[in-house]
Amino acid sequence: MATIKDVAERVGVSVTTVSRVLNNRGYLSEDLKRRVYQAMEELNYQPNELARSLFRKKSNIIGLIIPDISHPFFSEIAIHIETFAYKSGYKILLCNSQLDKKKEKDYLNMLKASQVDGIIMGSHTLDTEEYKSINMPLVTLDRQLSESIPYVSSDHYKGGQLATKLLIRKGCKKIAHISGNLKLHLLAKARYDGFIDTVKKHSINHVVVQTDLNGFKYDEYKKIVTELFLKHPDLDGVFASSDLIAAQVLKECKRLGKRVPEDVKVVGFDGIRVGEFMMPGLSTIQQPIKDIAKTAVKLLIDWINGTEVPRENILPVKLIEKETT
Amino acid sequence: MATIKDVAERVGVSVTTVSRVLNNRGYLSEDLKRRVYQAMEELNYQPNELARSLFRKKSNIIGLIIPDISHPFFSEIAIHIETFAYKSGYKILLCNSQLDKKKEKDYLNMLKASQVDGIIMGSHTLDTEEYKSINMPLVTLDRQLSESIPYVSSDHYKGGQLATKLLIRKGCKKIAHISGNLKLHLLAKARYDGFIDTVKKHSINHVVVQTDLNGFKYDEYKKIVTELFLKHPDLDGVFASSDLIAAQVLKECKRLGKRVPEDVKVVGFDGIRVGEFMMPGLSTIQQPIKDIAKTAVKLLIDWINGTEVPRENILPVKLIEKETT
Repeated sequence: MATIKDVAERVGVSVTTVSRVLNNRGYLSEDLKRRVYQAMEELNYQPNELARSLFRKKSNIIGLIIPDISHPFFSEIAIHIETFAYKSGYKILLCNSQLDKKKEKDYLNMLKASQVDGIIMGSHTLDTEEYKSINMPLVTLDRQLSESIPYVSSDHYKGGQLATKLLIRKGCKKIAHISGNLKLHLLAKARYDGFIDTVKKHSINHVVVQTDLNGFKYDEYKKIVTELFLKHPDLDGVFASSDLIAAQVLKECKRLGKRVPEDVKVVGFDGIRVGEFMMPGLSTIQQPIKDIAKTAVKLLIDWINGTEVPRENILPVKLIEKETT
Repeated sequence: MATIKDVAERVGVSVTTVSRVLNNRGYLSEDLKRRVYQAMEELNYQPNELARSLFRKKSNIIGLIIPDISHPFFSEIAIHIETFAYKSGYKILLCNSQLDKKKEKDYLNMLKASQVDGIIMGSHTLDTEEYKSINMPLVTLDRQLSESIPYVSSDHYKGGQLATKLLIRKGCKKIAHISGNLKLHLLAKARYDGFIDTVKKHSINHVVVQTDLNGFKYDEYKKIVTELFLKHPDLDGVFASSDLIAAQVLKECKRLGKRVPEDVKVVGFDGIRVGEFMMPGLSTIQQPIKDIAKTAVKLLIDWINGTEVPRENILPVKLIEKETT
């Protein structure tokens, strides 16, 4: 098996120079890099990344903690995070917390011990303190943890306003908002604030029910939506806090013989691709999922590289008006 | 910062014993383990996993190579793979090949160099030879690479038969099959074989068009389905090789004013949860996604631990008959 010394000899440079090329450290001419990589190829030299990591104190791995990769919003975020990370030479360690405190803590400890270079966090069931003590670059999605931790989020308040104004403009007199969990300190709660401020401003009758957006809780959605229409048969507008919940509302309307949009108008949230594909007529608030991913990866890598990064990163949403309103 | 020596002193055992506990090696009493972990906690000792990996030659990381995590089939496989791996003390490094040869090769080299303990592979654009030379435990999903590499797959042939028989039983006279890429050596090709054998046996008029199932190629699906109905306006049955493609067929039928199931009957494949949720009436062939994931993780870990594993692992599918047939 070829060693780094063999590569150095083949190129006619020192081992330190080869090591500098492998770690991309200091000034390196393109010609030198080309020759080193060519020699590596010819000798079939496999640098041991673990050993290199120890030496450099860098693993080039980012830990991604999300609630559930099978939720379409998170799988869509994940493909973009992975794509941007890959382009920057980073790999992704996938951690699904499944909103389980023990699992999330296990992963957090594991990520600390594995010396990943940083963490992108889109889930938190643990106390903010646990995250503050992490002591490595950390960027959150939709979570505002402390004064020092940067976060990326959509403009949820604006999204809540846009959805509600659309329903009011279309003539709705009694509107329900099916929100996410309002007790978690998620920035997505601002969708609720945008809703409440708008219905109050226009003195519109309204109802709010809570669910948990982060998991893939189909049965919970069904129960909540069924009860909502049972209690409020006169609803004529629903602002659902995710496209998945909007799907449940559409199903329930069909079951009850209510026509959409004639009897009930429905707006979702997220603008996930799979929703666009399977429910092509759904009006929704589109989050800039690709930009969120790109921004999170950029902030994290900048931080890893010692660049100061802005704390607040709020990205614009877009109203997509289709057949359900 | 506490060292392993501090932990050993606190417990009153040797460093070797603490190391054995950390690596779960040899006989260890529950009491000893408890005392060591308690001392670690009290001293806030963080074992350096990278250093331990080098020592043990084990990273407890599994590389997962799939085409695209944002495709619902793969995101659903991934959540189960991660869950079972986590229960066995393994972490998942997420690699999306996006059907890009260069990216897949990069990841493969990276996984070799990082010394992951094994690979679960659900994507291949590279030559079989590249995989044979990997020289570490490898389990494939739906891919038969060589005599020595174990694979996990649904009973695609049976699925093709079940879908086609259902359409024939419901009275279809001209059936289209929208298949995956038949040139890739995927076991999913057996869906096509099951279709062809069944229509031929019953002397039913049929058409086959190919697409690529692995990516999230919405525009491609649209083009293929539009052309299919343009060329064959007399189709009265479609067996789509994924629920996503079935969604496109349903949209096209709606656009053309064809009623489902009266004018055209449609069966999908996969039985993904998000499809069940957003298209509750779709008849489909359900793959045992959770069992596929569980089997793949078990086989891989067994192999890593030196146990001999069966090469062929074919799991049963299930016909789910709903409103579109």
